[in-house]
Amino acid sequence: MKLLVINPNISDDVTALIESEALRSASPGTQLVVRTAGHGVEYIETRFESLIAAGAVAEIIAEHHGPVDGGPIHGGPIDGVVVAAFGDPGMPALKELTDVPVVGITEAALCAAALQGHRFSIIAISDRIQPWYRDCVERFGLGGRLASIRSINETLNGIGSVQQDFKETLLALSRQAVAEDGADVVILAGAPLAGLARELRGQIPVPVVDGISAGIRMAEAVVGLHSGQHRAGSFAPPPVKARRGLSENLDAALAAAQQAARPAAAPAAAAPAR
Amino acid sequence: MKLLVINPNISDDVTALIESEALRSASPGTQLVVRTAGHGVEYIETRFESLIAAGAVAEIIAEHHGPVDGGPIHGGPIDGVVVAAFGDPGMPALKELTDVPVVGITEAALCAAALQGHRFSIIAISDRIQPWYRDCVERFGLGGRLASIRSINETLNGIGSVQQDFKETLLALSRQAVAEDGADVVILAGAPLAGLARELRGQIPVPVVDGISAGIRMAEAVVGLHSGQHRAGSFAPPPVKARRGLSENLDAALAAAQQAARPAAAPAAAAPAR
Amino acid sequence: MKLLVINPNISDDVTALIESEALRSASPGTQLVVRTAGHGVEYIETRFESLIAAGAVAEIIAEHHGPVDGGPIHGGPIDGVVVAAFGDPGMPALKELTDVPVVGITEAALCAAALQGHRFSIIAISDRIQPWYRDCVERFGLGGRLASIRSINETLNGIGSVQQDFKETLLALSRQAVAEDGADVVILAGAPLAGLARELRGQIPVPVVDGISAGIRMAEAVVGLHSGQHRAGSFAPPPVKARRGLSENLDAALAAAQQAARPAAAPAAAAPAR
Amino acid sequence: MKLLVINPNISDDVTALIESEALRSASPGTQLVVRTAGHGVEYIETRFESLIAAGAVAEIIAEHHGPVDGGPIHGGPIDGVVVAAFGDPGMPALKELTDVPVVGITEAALCAAALQGHRFSIIAISDRIQPWYRDCVERFGLGGRLASIRSINETLNGIGSVQQDFKETLLALSRQAVAEDGADVVILAGAPLAGLARELRGQIPVPVVDGISAGIRMAEAVVGLHSGQHRAGSFAPPPVKARRGLSENLDAALAAAQQAARPAAAPAAAAPAR
Amino acid sequence: MKLLVINPNISDDVTALIESEALRSASPGTQLVVRTAGHGVEYIETRFESLIAAGAVAEIIAEHHGPVDGGPIHGGPIDGVVVAAFGDPGMPALKELTDVPVVGITEAALCAAALQGHRFSIIAISDRIQPWYRDCVERFGLGGRLASIRSINETLNGIGSVQQDFKETLLALSRQAVAEDGADVVILAGAPLAGLARELRGQIPVPVVDGISAGIRMAEAVVGLHSGQHRAGSFAPPPVKARRGLSENLDAALAAAQQAARPAAAPAAAAPAR
Amino acid sequence: MKLLVINPNISDDVTALIESEALRSASPGTQLVVRTAGHGVEYIETRFESLIAAGAVAEIIAEHHGPVDGGPIHGGPIDGVVVAAFGDPGMPALKELTDVPVVGITEAALCAAALQGHRFSIIAISDRIQPWYRDCVERFGLGGRLASIRSINETLNGIGSVQQDFKETLLALSRQAVAEDGADVVILAGAPLAGLARELRGQIPVPVVDGISAGIRMAEAVVGLHSGQHRAGSFAPPPVKARRGLSENLDAALAAAQQAARPAAAPAAAAPAR
Repeated sequence: MKLLVINPNISDDVTALIESEALRSASPGTQLVVRTAGHGVEYIETRFESLIAAGAVAEIIAEHHGPVDGGPIHGGPIDGVVVAAFGDPGMPALKELTDVPVVGITEAALCAAALQGHRFSIIAISDRIQPWYRDCVERFGLGGRLASIRSINETLNGIGSVQQDFKETLLALSRQAVAEDGADVVILAGAPLAGLARELRGQIPVPVVDGISAGIRMAEAVVGLHSGQHRAGSFAPPPVKARRGLSENLDAALAAAQQAARPAAAPAAAAPAR
Repeated sequence: MKLLVINPNISDDVTALIESEALRSASPGTQLVVRTAGHGVEYIETRFESLIAAGAVAEIIAEHHGPVDGGPIHGGPIDGVVVAAFGDPGMPALKELTDVPVVGITEAALCAAALQGHRFSIIAISDRIQPWYRDCVERFGLGGRLASIRSINETLNGIGSVQQDFKETLLALSRQAVAEDGADVVILAGAPLAGLARELRGQIPVPVVDGISAGIRMAEAVVGLHSGQHRAGSFAPPPVKARRGLSENLDAALAAAQQAARPAAAPAAAAPAR
Repeated sequence: MKLLVINPNISDDVTALIESEALRSASPGTQLVVRTAGHGVEYIETRFESLIAAGAVAEIIAEHHGPVDGGPIHGGPIDGVVVAAFGDPGMPALKELTDVPVVGITEAALCAAALQGHRFSIIAISDRIQPWYRDCVERFGLGGRLASIRSINETLNGIGSVQQDFKETLLALSRQAVAEDGADVVILAGAPLAGLARELRGQIPVPVVDGISAGIRMAEAVVGLHSGQHRAGSFAPPPVKARRGLSENLDAALAAAQQAARPAAAPAAAAPAR
Repeated sequence: MKLLVINPNISDDVTALIESEALRSASPGTQLVVRTAGHGVEYIETRFESLIAAGAVAEIIAEHHGPVDGGPIHGGPIDGVVVAAFGDPGMPALKELTDVPVVGITEAALCAAALQGHRFSIIAISDRIQPWYRDCVERFGLGGRLASIRSINETLNGIGSVQQDFKETLLALSRQAVAEDGADVVILAGAPLAGLARELRGQIPVPVVDGISAGIRMAEAVVGLHSGQHRAGSFAPPPVKARRGLSENLDAALAAAQQAARPAAAPAAAAPAR
Repeated sequence: MKLLVINPNISDDVTALIESEALRSASPGTQLVVRTAGHGVEYIETRFESLIAAGAVAEIIAEHHGPVDGGPIHGGPIDGVVVAAFGDPGMPALKELTDVPVVGITEAALCAAALQGHRFSIIAISDRIQPWYRDCVERFGLGGRLASIRSINETLNGIGSVQQDFKETLLALSRQAVAEDGADVVILAGAPLAGLARELRGQIPVPVVDGISAGIRMAEAVVGLHSGQHRAGSFAPPPVKARRGLSENLDAALAAAQQAARPAAAPAAAAPAR
Repeated sequence: MKLLVINPNISDDVTALIESEALRSASPGTQLVVRTAGHGVEYIETRFESLIAAGAVAEIIAEHHGPVDGGPIHGGPIDGVVVAAFGDPGMPALKELTDVPVVGITEAALCAAALQGHRFSIIAISDRIQPWYRDCVERFGLGGRLASIRSINETLNGIGSVQQDFKETLLALSRQAVAEDGADVVILAGAPLAGLARELRGQIPVPVVDGISAGIRMAEAVVGLHSGQHRAGSFAPPPVKARRGLSENLDAALAAAQQAARPAAAPAAAAPAR
């Protein structure tokens, strides 16, 4: 299985953290293609930054869409995509763009947490980031199980070193989430914290979920289910219509997705209309 | 008051419909600047198309951001922005990008409906568009007051003529929403339906809200309140950080917004930290 | 446009505050008729006091209902009604009583806040008032966006001077709502605080909404939309039936509303039954 | 135990139905005082009619408030009040007006249904009445357990004979609620249907709840618990303040309630402030 | 009326507390049969302990099911069942097992609280117990009215003496719930606190609900309504199918319930299929 | 990795279906131990049958708990447990009983569906089963994303052959869920349908999730995350207290879990109290 792992931020040092933890987490047969956003910001803290990042991720997915091979499950050489920023920029819209599963690390972490406890807390790297994370949890539908979001309230030295610079703070926030907020599971959020969960686990008295690990493992699980494509419903490829000004890759990806969704033979029968 | 009205679709005929209804709806002192998306699709039906449109709207807002004049209410010559596609592409993220109010026609129509009745229905131009609209209503928080979304289940001849081609269907859907779904108010959704509410009003037994009219009127109301800018909280300009690959306009707009939020004198005092 | 602005409390000094801010907020062409409740209490803090006030407001609306002129939009010389107490006494029931829009200042303020940010806090004049306000926000459907309600926990000297007596407290509560509760917008609630938002705006780092201003501006917007009347659904005039013991004005208003809803010609066709 | 049972409508024939079923339902030691609204409408179908009725009910409660006897549990000769119209006009505001429990028949029926099944349906006498009932269920907090509201869609001959005129229709609606909507319990709503549940029970395959019976039984249960009075919180008597234009009874009732809440000795200690 | 009152814990001293308060609370004509769980734990604090207790309660209900007598209301000599542990182990599943009402003390207390105020707090005997209680309130549907759960954060000396050992703590927690959390009603939760509400009532400024009292009173009310049995819907007896390894009592109870639900004559007519 | 897969029903033919699909779904390195409930019913359709099944599953988990080996991740030779009945009997309570992840196939299927679309429908084998499934989805927190539950409304010939006997019906229900209910993903629910998704996938125009496959894949993913144990919070082993009448296995499992949670050295430090 080949997974495309996209860092929606422009920081190469965060991409390195993502890649390291993704490699540690992946199952033996999983191959990883790791990419960094071509445009955007150093790290995402706001809804608008997430919007910018979503566009950058779309470009990378489109670029890797590849030739349609007519196979039954996917339309190109990639078997699944992991969007590796907490807050899931562009989700769930990006799931329309390709026939392979596209999984955000937040939704993956939420599932991993929800399967291990009832209420969970999210530990984040900045106060400003909280409202965007909260939106993301509520939109996924699990807002009722969110015990709290706690975050570092200090200026960061650099995004690549945040997990080492603030390890004690992050540990204390995690323990407070358990003791004061009723968290059954703690999620260490954000790609810059990738891998920290492995270090802190013994010191936090509940299961600790790492976003990148969860993203890889959940993507593997979903890809492995071979559940089939969206040929109807709200995640089928967007209908054919006039387009203008899109990048060449994006234009091609949309055309290919629409083509794949409309096989030459018996189109009406294959796409039950509502 | 000068409002920037943005059609997030690339269709010039829809822009014409928007402009006509906006002009009919605007108060005497309101001046309109109407623009069409520079890139995107003919009309938006899906979450992904909305994501593309959001990027295009951001570019136009950034382009009109203009020089920061240091005035107390806004950072440029525009007093407010109306995003004129139902489903509110890019909302609420786009509110971070400028100091003037940015209002989507869906959120405006929801407010106009909610102030006139309890439950409302949305009449839409395609079945595929429903899930995106539903997301939008739920994210605004008024999902509990949504009586139904009803839509045309036929192929459109052209987006500019949909309101004339399907007038009888739209009238019938509206009446069904009242009689069968318990709608107290009907919203005729989508810029392609701009102005139709004026025609159908006498024939539908409840108040009928037009998205464009509501967008203009609500934007006028909010701009007129002079409520002040976001200097803290989740709609303050995004924090200063490394950026790469953004358009010149967008880069300048972000820089200007960040600059406006950090006055030369006594920056710490002016921006209460959490 | 002529708006009837009703103070549901019996305090003339609060009516004066309402009138001043309403005049400052109204658009050039708007004419205001300001009235004080004929019976009730000094200021409303509880659900029961709100119930009493609702009855008093109904009497004033009925009194100004005037002769039915058969015009297409309204049934009398008033174009809209603003109910000028936070908590919206009698809403949404009062919307049934007349063909013109009836807008409460809370619902107006909630819309003004929701269009400018995601989460909002309400700053109130007494602790006892909080549960009633919370009910009101939840019933409107925006409970999920309420960051907090904070209130003065001290005995008031007089209702007319509360905004001056407690200016510093109200400012501190507003700043706490932003810094500690995550408010993107602050609503200064209650007619006794009318106008204070203008003073405090520069000192609070997010948009600040005044209930009276919002009520006037939103009523203007809704009246200007000419959305049409309720001839079916749950806000149509109450069905004709035996009545007893109502005031002369109320009895006449109900009769007139019912009459307006049933035109002489083709009644069945005009009022599609469910 | 003496219960004051109030018909919020002006129809004496409905009062007779209420009294009959209340007598059949009451426990041996329960004495009933049944009263009809002094003003209002024939039967309540709308939010505004409910508002009018709430005022009429307040007057009757005030009239029966009686002398404050200083006893530990109640402030007068009545031990509890049942508000006998579905939709619970004036609730929960009326609970502030007296120290004895005030129970609406809707909230009582909801509790009786919720204790016997998970989801329940409400069978109502007119389509117009549905939105008001739905509001009432949602405000009580059990909207998530409402399977459906079904209603007679025909003109009523007279409110006193509706249960006999439409017995077959009501039976059919009840069965549909079970078979098609998933109701575990059926509530026959509205005082005009008082007593019908006894007749139909064998013919509907789930428990059937009568509003009046539930109101009497639940009021008996709550009165019997002697839970104590509201001396703090949002149901304590409204704070002392200027009043004007209230009826003599209402004015006296408010004064008495406030007096009872403030005992001569050690007032501060007895009423912990927030 | 004969009520079977079941202590789902194995503690005889708690059973004694339950019995004492149940006797004080019951109406004159009510006869009580009090039983202690045959297996399980000393007191229930967790979801798993509640699951174990549910099985023990099922056995006792089955044991008292008795011969089917063909009577119209119940299938045995017991008229109703009260499950006397807060958290309602086995609810609502246990309602399927017998034709008589089965009422949990939590759901009873929630109804008693909801009829006396809007928001309520629960005072509990251990921190660990909170999440299970919260689940229970949310599943009943009244999570939106829960002001708080507060609990003793100390090691208990013995479950039978907890109400005396921690009386001052429990009083302080109750007062904090009113003053800080906005509780209109306080529920003293858990059978080990049975009877304490009588002692503390005068010292807490809002109504105080005891679970056992509420359970007895609400069960009396529901039994007295004679609402009828579940012959369809999700609380009808489980369908006939192969069973293995159940206790003799449980097997007999299921067989009897299924038998009662399928009368010899005209089975199809009596059980309307969906 | 070794997974214990438990059929909570007593039907050996369903166990065979479960085992077949589990083997097809498992990753190369996964070893399966498949067990059938020792007591209970043929298949579970009701809340009470689920309660019985929960007890049977607890016994099997306890039986396989094995010797505590003091290792960091699990307390015995099993690495994870899959509870293989839709509706997740005993969840989430059973997660307290052992240190290894315990995953229900419903929660697994919900996660698999939620990661592939927004709204999902459940296709079930009997009408009676719907309310229990709905409870399960709501308790997991994803009720807002449930498009519909559709089910076979016919008598089953035998539980082992239901997927073959009703293949056309199940296919039609699935297509209706997409076309009429707005499902983005279809879940074929219930162990008796294990494996059917593989057959129907090409014929349903959205991804189709099989409960057993999802259970296996999600359990593998969660086990592979090594998130750590519950040593605090609501899923830590139940506190030590008197027990009576439990099976030998269950008693031993509880003792072992409690022992594992309290290491010999520094117990207080390892278990941060709240």
